[in-house]
Amino acid sequence: MDDLSVPPHMSPDEFRTYGHQLVDWVADYWTSLPQRRVRPADPPGAVAAKLPAGPPATGDGFASLVDDLDTIIAPGLTHWQHPRFFAYFPANTSGPSVLGDLVAAGLGVQGMLWATGPACTEVETVVLDWLADLLDLPEKFRSRSTGGGVIQDSASSATLVATLAALHRASGGDWRAEGTRRRYTVYTSTEGHSSIEKAARMAGIGDAGLRLIEVDEETLAMRPDRLRERIAADVAAGAVPALVVATVGTTSTTAVDPLPAIAEITREYGIWLHVDAAYAGSAAVCPELRAGQVGLEHADSYCFDPHKWLLTGFDCDAFWVADRAGLIQALSVLPEYLRNAATDSDAVIDYRDWQVPLGRRFRALKLWFVLRWYGAEGLRAHIRSHVALARDFAALVRADQRFEIVAPYPYALVVFRLRGAAPDDADRANAALLERLNADGGVYLSHTRVRGRYALRLAVGSPRTTAADVAAAWDAIRSAADAVAGGSSV
Amino acid sequence: MDDLSVPPHMSPDEFRTYGHQLVDWVADYWTSLPQRRVRPADPPGAVAAKLPAGPPATGDGFASLVDDLDTIIAPGLTHWQHPRFFAYFPANTSGPSVLGDLVAAGLGVQGMLWATGPACTEVETVVLDWLADLLDLPEKFRSRSTGGGVIQDSASSATLVATLAALHRASGGDWRAEGTRRRYTVYTSTEGHSSIEKAARMAGIGDAGLRLIEVDEETLAMRPDRLRERIAADVAAGAVPALVVATVGTTSTTAVDPLPAIAEITREYGIWLHVDAAYAGSAAVCPELRAGQVGLEHADSYCFDPHKWLLTGFDCDAFWVADRAGLIQALSVLPEYLRNAATDSDAVIDYRDWQVPLGRRFRALKLWFVLRWYGAEGLRAHIRSHVALARDFAALVRADQRFEIVAPYPYALVVFRLRGAAPDDADRANAALLERLNADGGVYLSHTRVRGRYALRLAVGSPRTTAADVAAAWDAIRSAADAVAGGSSV
Ligand SMILES: Cc1ncc(COP(=O)(O)O)c(C=O)c1O
Ligand SMILES: Cc1ncc(COP(=O)(O)O)c(C=O)c1O
Repeated sequence: MDDLSVPPHMSPDEFRTYGHQLVDWVADYWTSLPQRRVRPADPPGAVAAKLPAGPPATGDGFASLVDDLDTIIAPGLTHWQHPRFFAYFPANTSGPSVLGDLVAAGLGVQGMLWATGPACTEVETVVLDWLADLLDLPEKFRSRSTGGGVIQDSASSATLVATLAALHRASGGDWRAEGTRRRYTVYTSTEGHSSIEKAARMAGIGDAGLRLIEVDEETLAMRPDRLRERIAADVAAGAVPALVVATVGTTSTTAVDPLPAIAEITREYGIWLHVDAAYAGSAAVCPELRAGQVGLEHADSYCFDPHKWLLTGFDCDAFWVADRAGLIQALSVLPEYLRNAATDSDAVIDYRDWQVPLGRRFRALKLWFVLRWYGAEGLRAHIRSHVALARDFAALVRADQRFEIVAPYPYALVVFRLRGAAPDDADRANAALLERLNADGGVYLSHTRVRGRYALRLAVGSPRTTAADVAAAWDAIRSAADAVAGGSSV
Repeated sequence: MDDLSVPPHMSPDEFRTYGHQLVDWVADYWTSLPQRRVRPADPPGAVAAKLPAGPPATGDGFASLVDDLDTIIAPGLTHWQHPRFFAYFPANTSGPSVLGDLVAAGLGVQGMLWATGPACTEVETVVLDWLADLLDLPEKFRSRSTGGGVIQDSASSATLVATLAALHRASGGDWRAEGTRRRYTVYTSTEGHSSIEKAARMAGIGDAGLRLIEVDEETLAMRPDRLRERIAADVAAGAVPALVVATVGTTSTTAVDPLPAIAEITREYGIWLHVDAAYAGSAAVCPELRAGQVGLEHADSYCFDPHKWLLTGFDCDAFWVADRAGLIQALSVLPEYLRNAATDSDAVIDYRDWQVPLGRRFRALKLWFVLRWYGAEGLRAHIRSHVALARDFAALVRADQRFEIVAPYPYALVVFRLRGAAPDDADRANAALLERLNADGGVYLSHTRVRGRYALRLAVGSPRTTAADVAAAWDAIRSAADAVAGGSSV
């Protein structure tokens, strides 16, 4: 850059050249995954130490950026798209999702209002209706009914939004003005996701207003009898129950709370029922995997993450409400500078009133690309292949007497552990097993505690995962178990 | 797709081919912008009506997706990247940003924890430190000090996070458990952004706890004397002042609140001071445009949106706190399944504790691409070119006796209106002028109310905007004014 008064914008030709190069870079990266460690072995600070102390005074060439991708960024990552990434829940993506997102980035639309992005808004409404069809969700969640869908960044934000709408309703409308000064309460099971606690805290309910309901020993699902007792006690004590969050597919073990029995209680007390199917919701593209959503017609809101298991890159949570008017009332603020004819006409959706932030990117595009590229049958094949791989893995575990499976596995997560007579010793052995396994870099699993005991989680989620990868994971697990049993240090 | 049991994943070669095609599509789209209307003329529902009723059973070919981009999506959008988009504040992007985001989408990393994305976390910390240097932010916001930076999706979310941290501090630590049952109060000026009201509502403070402080008639900046009076009255009445949000560059007119005088009050009362520079913060890459941030060393948190005016695509808000430990305490929840050795060691940043959602994408990459491609001087040239264009526009307005400029314009927003003896008539004339102007599709401006009166906003923000575009806007404004004066109907 010679003339420092002219911004050195990337020309269209440069954009084409570099863009092609980076598309190829991504394709090469994906192809390279099996050869990479799933996680880097470097200690904290290793990446930062390789970066310069400040931004350049004048622009770096593109070649140096690509160089750093190769030598600093990629080797410094935990590879979520790796075929042997079995940790947490997946956050998988796909070619169509990346390309849809590329177009969204290029369009650079900010769809806070219908007026600032008509297609951004309308494609989102339509695609969420499509998705509701695909999952066979209740009619009331459709935009042609009283409800509608919206894309949130995450299930955490969906839960927060549900919490706010629930407070608005529970307050009889005075929450907007008065805040959470009454003693509101929120219910989920002891296996509910941490985002429920975080949402209650952020909403001003406080951890003291959160009730963690006991689960069934066997199924790890919420006990409706305990829920009812707790609500009755709270009401008697003068609290205002605002929200029950039931989970279809808990984070630890994919347990499924009994929606029909829970809904009976929420209807009786007039409490908002939010159903969090962050991970397992994707499975409902397959008719045979919809058992968890029986009773959903009584829920006030529902969400799942296409960014977990439906080949749509993070961030993409699909959130539906049965009563969009209530949601909008809870969240709308209309300053003069956002007024416009379309909004005033009441004929459009302004999604800013359905979410925490004001601005929004065109996230529906990546989901639209995915649904159209794969089609319903393609998505079913994807889910079924993972469920089958998980069952194969479970069979391997069951066949080895040293291990036990500790929870049902209706989806593609298997939770298991080394058996042990003394629980604390077994916990230590399992923790040592996981540490050894993950230190090697060949696979990546995560852990949890089930009924208080340490257990390992293997979730099949990458579209690149094959039977060979699952077999390799099992081999690695057995070797690590041998080593742990042999007492060799981690 | 013949075998319905095999998911039809996009092959690497298909990804390359289609990816190149879409990179070119984006380049072509950008080149086509000057020839497009800035906004579509179609009524609500026009886009939705063109979409099929449901997703396909088996995948659509890629060609049909691209077809729909050309014929349905692009014509149905408000084009935020258009050279004659002068509405709201910009949400500009750039080649380097789009390419950085492409890589982030391809990597598909979910960086909720350091352990789940070491490079994702460390690049973010480093880049926010770079940005702090570039803007000459106070030392305490640096990660090497007690603070640090994090990318939020938006300024709205940054304000919410600041509100939560402020409540935690104001409560003396009992807010996490007890919620907002005390009477907390939040202060901003009457010109503060609607996201402040929304954050107070979401946090459970309620609209009744929001104090909109009067502004100076001339500068439209918050009056510290009024702020002090209001805080004193609230304290006397038993309320707990938790947060003051000062604005550098208000949404209506880019007014700048006097930070030194405000900070004196917040320090005296021990109130959290958050500074919202969502739009104007980008200007601080230029030393001559830093007047607004004098006094920032007394703030507890600060944010601005690189996605508004720093060539980084939505969503990218840069948020800094002076005391990261307080923020993390406010927001952390640590379930077993997220525990890991790195977190336990306390040697890493887990950004999930700095934000509302749990998961996060690798947003630092697009910002890193932008900083490196443009370099400090390139970004300065970009900002200076827009400030100059806005001044040129203001000169045109000033030279026409029919118009008046209604507020100072230190950045690249000019707020102006048709003069008029009778205020209500003038308001109607200005509203009619805007409607006529925007209906034509040649330019897009937005409006606000200043001192209660309707006014037009012209913000220069697209990297494609040239002097000719600004001249064209002025021509269109004058013609529309002629028509409105001539009494022709809109
Ligand atoms: C049941 C459940 N709910 C919510 C979440 C949070 O998801 P997100 O990262 O989209 O907020 C998770 C994440 O694993 C989950 O398993
Ligand atoms: C001063 C100010 N604060 C906050 C915001 C909200 O920005 P975001 O869309 O990033 O939440 C805006 C948007 O225009 C703004 O002007």
